[in-house]
Amino acid sequence: MGESLNGLKRNQMCGELRESHVGQKVTVMGWVQRKRNLGSLVFIDLRDRTGLLQVVFGEEINKEAFEKADLAKSEYCIAVTGEIIKREAPNANLPTGMVELKGESIKILSESETPPIYIKEDLDASENIRLKYRYLDLRRPDMQKILMIRHKAAKVVRDYLDENGFLEMETPMLTKSTPEGARDYLVPSRNYPGMFYALPQSPQIFKQLLMVSGFDRYFQIVKCFRDEDLRANRQPEFTQIDLEMSFVELDDVIALNEGLIKRVFKEVGDVEVNLPIRRMPYAEAMDKYGSDKPDLRFGMEIKNITEAVRGTEFAVFKNAIENGGSVRAIVAENSADMGRKKLDKLGEFVKTYKAKGLAWIAYKEGEIKSPISKFFDEEGMNKIIEAAGAKPGDLILIVADMDSVVLQSLGALRLELAKELGILENNKEFNFVWITEFPLLEYDEEEQRYVALHHPFTAPMDEDLQYLDTDPKRVRAKAYDIVLNGEELGGGSIRIHDTKLQEKMFSLLGFTQESAWERFGFLLEAFKYGPPPHGGLAYGLDRMIMFLAGTDNIKDVIAFPKNQNAYCPMSEAPNVVEEKQLKELGIGIAKNS
Amino acid sequence: MGESLNGLKRNQMCGELRESHVGQKVTVMGWVQRKRNLGSLVFIDLRDRTGLLQVVFGEEINKEAFEKADLAKSEYCIAVTGEIIKREAPNANLPTGMVELKGESIKILSESETPPIYIKEDLDASENIRLKYRYLDLRRPDMQKILMIRHKAAKVVRDYLDENGFLEMETPMLTKSTPEGARDYLVPSRNYPGMFYALPQSPQIFKQLLMVSGFDRYFQIVKCFRDEDLRANRQPEFTQIDLEMSFVELDDVIALNEGLIKRVFKEVGDVEVNLPIRRMPYAEAMDKYGSDKPDLRFGMEIKNITEAVRGTEFAVFKNAIENGGSVRAIVAENSADMGRKKLDKLGEFVKTYKAKGLAWIAYKEGEIKSPISKFFDEEGMNKIIEAAGAKPGDLILIVADMDSVVLQSLGALRLELAKELGILENNKEFNFVWITEFPLLEYDEEEQRYVALHHPFTAPMDEDLQYLDTDPKRVRAKAYDIVLNGEELGGGSIRIHDTKLQEKMFSLLGFTQESAWERFGFLLEAFKYGPPPHGGLAYGLDRMIMFLAGTDNIKDVIAFPKNQNAYCPMSEAPNVVEEKQLKELGIGIAKNS
Repeated sequence: MGESLNGLKRNQMCGELRESHVGQKVTVMGWVQRKRNLGSLVFIDLRDRTGLLQVVFGEEINKEAFEKADLAKSEYCIAVTGEIIKREAPNANLPTGMVELKGESIKILSESETPPIYIKEDLDASENIRLKYRYLDLRRPDMQKILMIRHKAAKVVRDYLDENGFLEMETPMLTKSTPEGARDYLVPSRNYPGMFYALPQSPQIFKQLLMVSGFDRYFQIVKCFRDEDLRANRQPEFTQIDLEMSFVELDDVIALNEGLIKRVFKEVGDVEVNLPIRRMPYAEAMDKYGSDKPDLRFGMEIKNITEAVRGTEFAVFKNAIENGGSVRAIVAENSADMGRKKLDKLGEFVKTYKAKGLAWIAYKEGEIKSPISKFFDEEGMNKIIEAAGAKPGDLILIVADMDSVVLQSLGALRLELAKELGILENNKEFNFVWITEFPLLEYDEEEQRYVALHHPFTAPMDEDLQYLDTDPKRVRAKAYDIVLNGEELGGGSIRIHDTKLQEKMFSLLGFTQESAWERFGFLLEAFKYGPPPHGGLAYGLDRMIMFLAGTDNIKDVIAFPKNQNAYCPMSEAPNVVEEKQLKELGIGIAKNS
Repeated sequence: MGESLNGLKRNQMCGELRESHVGQKVTVMGWVQRKRNLGSLVFIDLRDRTGLLQVVFGEEINKEAFEKADLAKSEYCIAVTGEIIKREAPNANLPTGMVELKGESIKILSESETPPIYIKEDLDASENIRLKYRYLDLRRPDMQKILMIRHKAAKVVRDYLDENGFLEMETPMLTKSTPEGARDYLVPSRNYPGMFYALPQSPQIFKQLLMVSGFDRYFQIVKCFRDEDLRANRQPEFTQIDLEMSFVELDDVIALNEGLIKRVFKEVGDVEVNLPIRRMPYAEAMDKYGSDKPDLRFGMEIKNITEAVRGTEFAVFKNAIENGGSVRAIVAENSADMGRKKLDKLGEFVKTYKAKGLAWIAYKEGEIKSPISKFFDEEGMNKIIEAAGAKPGDLILIVADMDSVVLQSLGALRLELAKELGILENNKEFNFVWITEFPLLEYDEEEQRYVALHHPFTAPMDEDLQYLDTDPKRVRAKAYDIVLNGEELGGGSIRIHDTKLQEKMFSLLGFTQESAWERFGFLLEAFKYGPPPHGGLAYGLDRMIMFLAGTDNIKDVIAFPKNQNAYCPMSEAPNVVEEKQLKELGIGIAKNS
């Protein structure tokens, strides 16, 4: 067992000591980053969450401390008392590099075996090892910095919302399963055998009920759960900044949130966000960028060249146009010299988005190379080049198919090309855009029914209410997503607050009235009692922190994340439980599982 | 469908309007508390979360608005625009009573059916109806006030801890089941059929790991879960203010938390807490008050009268003493006239705490009434009276048995008497006390083994380490509870941070080394790598809010609570789920359930 503190009190943090502290007697506590024995002197780099401090022990300073210090090894936890002195050879790489601590006494608070991973920045260890020894991985300064950013961001969000009259209110974790969209995590009930709670995918209904209750402005930073097959940057439990406001319309929600975004990015990331943030209707985003979360840090817009090629005999284009589709292109600047191998790879790439192929035109002054040149005379080629907006030296990439396939594949290709061409390298921009006027519904081919693009509580735009019966897919929603550098940071909507309209929405989604009431009856019932107009928004806190911390790995922003299989290599959760526990819950494990 | 806001913006809250606003044109939005039609005038009391405002509509003010206002009924949601004018007949009972709003235009935003409960303070409706229509129950001003207190308390806690260098960090909700103490809520894993996550009973292990990680000061306001049979004021999900600090000893944790308590109670409840808060060792609390959470707002201490009655022939006392027990008493002042019926009831009361009976002495000047007087001569009686500290007019109540029974029953009787005698009526005191020096272990007769009084991670007191092997029940812990008016507000301890000592603790609790490592291996492993000395505390936020809001019902401080059966009458959770969901999870419902 290590030594006890026995009344010893820390009065300084390692990383905060400066020349102004010279002459002060301090006590610091932390971990041995490194120890060097120079014979008559022992140097220890001592680390706490604020940084490193050099401590020097010497026979002439204090013999006992000197000898004990020499026993310390990496990651020993120690306490040192002594005087801050000016360093003879300052270390410019260290914020504390002008000073060092003259170690007059030392306590070894606990010893350490050799750690299985290095405690240093930019560690190159396997994810599994990092997660298994997460408590050591979290000692690394870059991880500590990220989680401090997370704390600060949450604090700034709370301060801002509190100042703006929002109340943080907790909604239940043990709720009812209403499978619509993602899969619920279930929790068997012991009191009601055969019945289950569900962990919330979001507090959506509860926050709307709080608006019905007259709380006016609600927020919560809250865990949500989705039992989905995990893609990169998805976690089974994730954190939302969830908010809702009464007596508002779309512009009000957007204005409030622009203030929030500006404040958080400035205070936490020192990023200046210029307001108002640009808005772009969904239709324009799809048309120009093939995505409802366009990365606007670069151009390379999709151009519709259908008119330029109309009447062509080239079967691929011709068929696409005849089937009601289109022919569209993006232009990679100064890439006319791209090699065949790369072009073939791009062709394969678009096929993963269901495009049948990729046509290309390498356009140079006085020379056009293209596999489709035989189908077009010079005039025809020039029309394409003009429609695509290419200039000499550019490469034109063309997909022809149904609009949805063309846009999706070119949208993805645009991002892939940006990566390939290094367009965003060293780009420090934070490019925000609100995407608005989303379709209310989209048709799910698999389920053969409409599904809500956002969720079933999103209000239709007033001017499109007339199409609800006759042409539902034409109806746009009072929905908005906030997109940053091509990633969705958050999304929300003005909600329906009318029982009849909400019932109609459920019926469009294929619910019978009975099943709608069975699942959402308490919301429909609540709307009978003077619900206020309301709307809100939810941000993915994890993603926000990823931006603020400059990491593209969601696991870096969560203290104890799960791996891709929703498993925790450290705690070994999930795990088997005792038979007695299952018996009490009235459940059993299926034989074939 | 109601009218749309259509650009109309609220610019004032109802409850905030004062004489200084007279002459201003305002737009307010809220709910119709009451409408009166006086022929040529319509009065509406409009309610939002800040309070009530009287709105007056008249034919001469605006005919259209007047007519529309007359359509409004209770709980309609409306928006009104007009000028704030001075009221001819002020209403002193209303903060806004000096003014009224001259209704120049009105929008009916949504209509309301007659609500099933009244929207008013101190509602006398059944709990089931209140919970079923919780969104209406929460419209009541007293409920709104409580949840605003909750928001503010959480905000103050966060501000204080942030200022003191704490980082709010999220720990996982999907963890491993380590049944020890209360029952876990389980969550079946789809990826690993037959395996389960558990919802956390507390973030205990994770916060300790964060200390091992060097985060130094952690806190979290976090949901915790216990699948227990619900007593009053227990909820299956509850909220903890959880915190942990490194490089500290008991006094440091207590000092930090005294600052927190002082700040919260002052800023939220306007209660002045004098520091330092009194400390009382567990042994003293048990000895004087028969409880480890003594209510110190009144005296009525338990007195040991064993010596005064030693040698008596009265069998009950004699046997108790001979069996190593004791005879103890409490004194009810000025209650010598208590009737037989009441005394019998008190006798029944102590029997529920396993006491075999209750002896009493009604002591008046020159007259002693007692069922045990035949066993004692005058001198004997006087010795009892003196030992009990009674004065003429008092009632002495005596229990003789094993110490544990005597103390528990007299401790409970003390509280019961205080209630009975109205001792605490109109008592506004907030009496805090730290209970310290708890036993580390207690023997569980049922399980025939030691269990941890706090939890298995609590460190023994240094001076008692010597008894760990020889006399474990003598070992006191570095544990502390903060008790307010006889209720535990929070508790914590300095933790073990040594693998060997932690293993020893598990072995005292009857774990084999293998099973200890199976359950808590990652903590034991973490302690190999330089763990810092650390300790912390967790408060029940729900209980803290109950104190601040002055309610004794935990359901009042939670927006959407469960009932006594862990059921939500509003959302009807828990509920059945689809067969498909269970199949995906690889579980089935047991036949006999």
